[in-house]
Amino acid sequence: MRYKCKCSYDGTLFHGFQIQKKMRTVQSEIESTLLLVLKQKIRIYPAGRTDTGVHAIGQVFHFDSSIEIEASKMKKAINSRLPKDIFISDVEITDNEFHARFSAKSKEYHYICDFGEYNPLYCNYRFYCRYRNIDFNIFEKAIHLYVGSHDFRYFSRSKKISDTVREIYSISCCKDGALVTVKIIGNGFLHNMIRIMIASAFEVARGKIRLCEIEKALAGVAPLQAPKKLPASGLYLINIDY
Amino acid sequence: MRYKCKCSYDGTLFHGFQIQKKMRTVQSEIESTLLLVLKQKIRIYPAGRTDTGVHAIGQVFHFDSSIEIEASKMKKAINSRLPKDIFISDVEITDNEFHARFSAKSKEYHYICDFGEYNPLYCNYRFYCRYRNIDFNIFEKAIHLYVGSHDFRYFSRSKKISDTVREIYSISCCKDGALVTVKIIGNGFLHNMIRIMIASAFEVARGKIRLCEIEKALAGVAPLQAPKKLPASGLYLINIDY
Repeated sequence: MRYKCKCSYDGTLFHGFQIQKKMRTVQSEIESTLLLVLKQKIRIYPAGRTDTGVHAIGQVFHFDSSIEIEASKMKKAINSRLPKDIFISDVEITDNEFHARFSAKSKEYHYICDFGEYNPLYCNYRFYCRYRNIDFNIFEKAIHLYVGSHDFRYFSRSKKISDTVREIYSISCCKDGALVTVKIIGNGFLHNMIRIMIASAFEVARGKIRLCEIEKALAGVAPLQAPKKLPASGLYLINIDY
Repeated sequence: MRYKCKCSYDGTLFHGFQIQKKMRTVQSEIESTLLLVLKQKIRIYPAGRTDTGVHAIGQVFHFDSSIEIEASKMKKAINSRLPKDIFISDVEITDNEFHARFSAKSKEYHYICDFGEYNPLYCNYRFYCRYRNIDFNIFEKAIHLYVGSHDFRYFSRSKKISDTVREIYSISCCKDGALVTVKIIGNGFLHNMIRIMIASAFEVARGKIRLCEIEKALAGVAPLQAPKKLPASGLYLINIDY
C-alpha cells in the first residue's frame, strides 16, 4: 500500500527535513510518529528536502506499508501524534508508480522579504531586509534572467551533485506595502539555490554587482564573486505539482 | 534621567515578562542588554506583566539612568544587542512623574482564535479552536456582560491580590473568515483574566454553561464551575494608553 501525504511545517525548530543522527528533523519526527501509528518501521520519501529554518505549506512525501488504513483515518491518526509544528493536510492511497520526488512536474517556492520596521513576531517567518537603495526595476530584470534551462552550479553551495542543470518555469515579484514576495516555479532546485539566486538579484538591484555577472554565472563562464545567501526564515515550499 | 520605551516581543520562548531565577524572561533579557549598553545595573518597570507565551506589540516600560543618551541613539544601541525576539520600537526621555504602570489609563489586548484548518506555522500565534457549534450571537452577548466595573475575582487564578475590581471599557469581536479576534480595552487585568473571560464566553456560546452563570460570577454571587482558560498563544498586548 503506497500512501501520498501532503504536509506543512514550521521549519524554525528543525535541522531541515532529512534525517540526521541526534538532530530534530521533519523526517525523523514523521517516521517516529508512523512507527507509533503503524507499529512498523517506515521510511518516507519527500518531493525534496528543505534546509534548517525553511518552512513548508505543501511538502509532499510518500511511504509504503503493508497495513491498509482509510486515508482520512490515517490523516487523523498521524496528526494526533505529531508535534505541533508539523501537520498532515492530506493523505491519499496511490498506485505504486507514484514517487513523491520522481513524479513531481514542478515545485513552487516563495521567498518573503520585509523592508518595513522590524517585528520580532515575524523574525522566523520573513527576511528583514535592511537595504534601503533597492531598484526594483533592476531586481525584476535580474530575476527574469533565471527563467529557462540553465546550469546553476554557481548558484549552489553543494559540490557533490554532477547534474546542475535546472529549469525555472516562472519567477515573479509581488510588492505589497513593505512586503516583497518572490514566487518561483521550477523542475527542481540545488542546495541553497533559491537563496543565492535572490540574494544575487538584490546585489544587482543595489548596485553591488552588474547584471552581466549573473548572466556569466548562468552561462558557466565565471562564478559569482563571493555569492551571498539570504536567510532561511523567508523561504517557503508552497506546492508540488504532479 | 527617565526613559520610556515601547517594545514588542514574541512570547513563545519566554517564561513571561517578569524576572525569575534561571528562567529566560523578557525583563531579564532587556535588563542584561541595558547592563551591556549603559554599564549600569538597571531595573525596568513595565506597564503590566505578560505570561509565558503571551505576545506584545505595544508593551511599555520605563527605567532610570544617570546616563543621558539621545532617544534615537538609545533605541539603536539597545536593539543592536537584544535577542531577535524582542524589539524596542520607541524610546522617549520623559519626566520623573511618568510611571509605565501607574500612569497608564488603559490597556488593550487582542485574542486571536482560528476556527479553520490547523496550520503549524501559526501554532504559537493563534488559538486553534476545535469547537464547531459556537453561536456567535450568544458569544457577543456573553462578552458584553464584562463591560463596566466588576469584581473579577472569579475570573483569575491569582489568590494573592486583594483588590480584584477592574473596569472594562470596551470589548468587541471581529470575524474575518475563519479568524475571530476579540479586542478588549480596560484599566487593568488580573492574572489569566482575559483567557478565562473569553473561555467562559465560549462555554456559554456552545451551550456548556448558562449566561447567568457569568452574571453571577461577575456579581460575586457564585464562582464559575471549573473555569476554563484559553492558551497563551492567541493573546497579544497591543497598546498602553497614557
